[in-house]
Amino acid sequence: MKKLNTSPLSGMQELLPTEQAVFDQLKNNISDVYHHYGFLNIETPIIERTDILLAKAGGDTEKQIYMVSKTDESADSADQALRFDHTVPLARYVVEHNNDLAFPFQVTQINRNFRGERAQRGRFREFYQCDADIIGREKLPIAYDAKVISCIYAALKTFNLPKMIIRISNRKVLAGFLSALNLTDKASDISGIIDHAEKVPAEKTRAALAELGLSNELVDKVCAFMFTKGSYDEVELRLRGILGDLTAVAEGLSELKEVTTVLEAEKTSNYIIDFMIIRGLDYYTGTVFETMLEDYREIGSIASGGRYENLASNFTDQKFPGVGGSIGLTRLFFILREYNLIDMSSANPVDYIIFPITPNEYEDAFELAAELRAKGKSVDVDLSDRKLGDKFNRAGKIADYAVVVGNDEVISQKYTAKDLKTGGTSELQL
Amino acid sequence: MKKLNTSPLSGMQELLPTEQAVFDQLKNNISDVYHHYGFLNIETPIIERTDILLAKAGGDTEKQIYMVSKTDESADSADQALRFDHTVPLARYVVEHNNDLAFPFQVTQINRNFRGERAQRGRFREFYQCDADIIGREKLPIAYDAKVISCIYAALKTFNLPKMIIRISNRKVLAGFLSALNLTDKASDISGIIDHAEKVPAEKTRAALAELGLSNELVDKVCAFMFTKGSYDEVELRLRGILGDLTAVAEGLSELKEVTTVLEAEKTSNYIIDFMIIRGLDYYTGTVFETMLEDYREIGSIASGGRYENLASNFTDQKFPGVGGSIGLTRLFFILREYNLIDMSSANPVDYIIFPITPNEYEDAFELAAELRAKGKSVDVDLSDRKLGDKFNRAGKIADYAVVVGNDEVISQKYTAKDLKTGGTSELQL
Repeated sequence: MKKLNTSPLSGMQELLPTEQAVFDQLKNNISDVYHHYGFLNIETPIIERTDILLAKAGGDTEKQIYMVSKTDESADSADQALRFDHTVPLARYVVEHNNDLAFPFQVTQINRNFRGERAQRGRFREFYQCDADIIGREKLPIAYDAKVISCIYAALKTFNLPKMIIRISNRKVLAGFLSALNLTDKASDISGIIDHAEKVPAEKTRAALAELGLSNELVDKVCAFMFTKGSYDEVELRLRGILGDLTAVAEGLSELKEVTTVLEAEKTSNYIIDFMIIRGLDYYTGTVFETMLEDYREIGSIASGGRYENLASNFTDQKFPGVGGSIGLTRLFFILREYNLIDMSSANPVDYIIFPITPNEYEDAFELAAELRAKGKSVDVDLSDRKLGDKFNRAGKIADYAVVVGNDEVISQKYTAKDLKTGGTSELQL
Repeated sequence: MKKLNTSPLSGMQELLPTEQAVFDQLKNNISDVYHHYGFLNIETPIIERTDILLAKAGGDTEKQIYMVSKTDESADSADQALRFDHTVPLARYVVEHNNDLAFPFQVTQINRNFRGERAQRGRFREFYQCDADIIGREKLPIAYDAKVISCIYAALKTFNLPKMIIRISNRKVLAGFLSALNLTDKASDISGIIDHAEKVPAEKTRAALAELGLSNELVDKVCAFMFTKGSYDEVELRLRGILGDLTAVAEGLSELKEVTTVLEAEKTSNYIIDFMIIRGLDYYTGTVFETMLEDYREIGSIASGGRYENLASNFTDQKFPGVGGSIGLTRLFFILREYNLIDMSSANPVDYIIFPITPNEYEDAFELAAELRAKGKSVDVDLSDRKLGDKFNRAGKIADYAVVVGNDEVISQKYTAKDLKTGGTSELQL
């Protein structure tokens, strides 16, 4: 009989060991790719000063934050809370340690963040984010935007998903476009409308723009803009058709061109320029990108990011421009399972389970285990006194192969591995 | 100018990237060994219900716990707090998921825990613990105690530390010994005195025992007991000398004998039976162990654990006996650095940094990077527009080798790797 409620709190991911092994594999894949791309791992504390976390936040973030307090409160302790993303702690880290860092600072954080959102299916209050950022001191060439995009894309490729497409835009193009049309004062509303355009019928989008007081001609132009996508040359041509003169969007276009040129050089080809991409967060100032599964667009973005002109403006007068991207792994893992897009049966956590028949065989069983471990295998030696059938039953749940070590095997020093899925046997090669 | 205090909160570990790389290497080493020994990784949420965490706690734990609350509190939310160890969440996990687990359940958790202790040097409020546990259903053979000890020891061996010694005792031996002397009612006080005996002069220990009302003869016997150490045969002989009859300690001795027999079979030889080992936590019921560096005994235990008869008695009536051990990595890393026992210079996070001279060389630079990454190397491509000298300066802080890719290299397709430590150069073999 249970004495207490032992379910995890709602909104928290808790996996069985075999599921965890698949999750860990994906996390390690991301971490390996980030590492191979030269990103340095850091870990910041999960608990931060509240004034650091909320220096810029507000709105939902402030409402969703987990405050922390000790029952035994010491006098000097500041207000504390759990971090809700990696970006704010990174800004604090860069300011605090900037004299010891090598800029451009290529940095990754793969860890848990916390948001007390309203609990609902597929939304998590504790979730992994896998961030890759590049931070410059004073300036950072636009080519780095492509580097982050390539790296995130390379990480996702390890998941063996159906065809992915990277959608890229640049906030400066939108800002220049709206300025050329004298719509700068409505930029925030129009951004919101573009951001939602994919989820509503075109008529609704037009109506929303008209409601802002835009003439039919301006509605046409804004709609033509937001549905613009293609190669760099294609979108430039299209913009020229809408605006006539490209002066107002020249800076944004030039950045887009550089990003796509570097992506081509890196042979990261599955991208498209797409002016419907906005990214909700208002700290992005240039390049923005999202990644989608082409045949599963209803899933939405599976990884995203962008350029921010100044990472740490709330903490210091020094300027740290940066570009970063993130894979929200906990949510992504949940969704990919819903869509059966990851193979949950693939990863048995254990390679071999060895069954010594009696304690007389322990020494040989341990020696065999040591040999297999030295080859990088995961090996469990079952020391329980249960029946062999029960042992095989347990083994089948977590391992690929079982090896019985009895008197005969000790004498012959020949071992047979039993494939626990097929039942087939073969001599163990050491 | 800084606008806010950007230092991490006191008691939190925050490392520079090159330090983090060493820490990560140690953590990965532990994780790899646990995995190779067949332990399955799980992750429980960092936030738990307070009634789960405090079902058994009390005293210091209760005072040190971090309570968690949302600013936007929903009606159904239970009292929540940050976990202070892995054992309580593991107990909850085993009860919750026991129908889906394969017993004996060999499980590892390598993650952060939280205790709001008084801040002092070398004490952390947020710290990694690397736990390995084996949980049985209804029963669990004593041989598994040896398995946990061997596995923890194998993990520590990857640190390349000076000679380690595993000190092993068994709570049942102490309990039986005190019962034979009719001292069971003073067991708790005497355990505390033995637990501290190593840190105080022998005279103080004798005085403390005398204060409990023990006769001189009993003080002699208890002291003889606590200073008993050696092989199994040696301690059995010694105990026989003190007690005459071994009936009261027979069960504990038999368990100790089995543990040492299995350790011998596993060729884990650096152990000693040592009755001074108590382990403070009162949930241990049989085997207890600590690991020390023989020449740095002042450091104290670097990894410890033991057998608990019932993991989840506060949560369920089902019986789950277990044995586990833990490496407190954050504190251990801090101490090993203090004693210069880990090489902090060894791990450059990046293997190669490539310098394309102009964007014309990007394509070849990226191709070279891809080839090196395919070989498992970490490769950064420096896209900044700084002077080559500045680039080398940055590279020297984080990488082993630099490779310049200019027009000549592109034409010849021959690349030279410069060793950033020695300044020597050699042709890059691909």
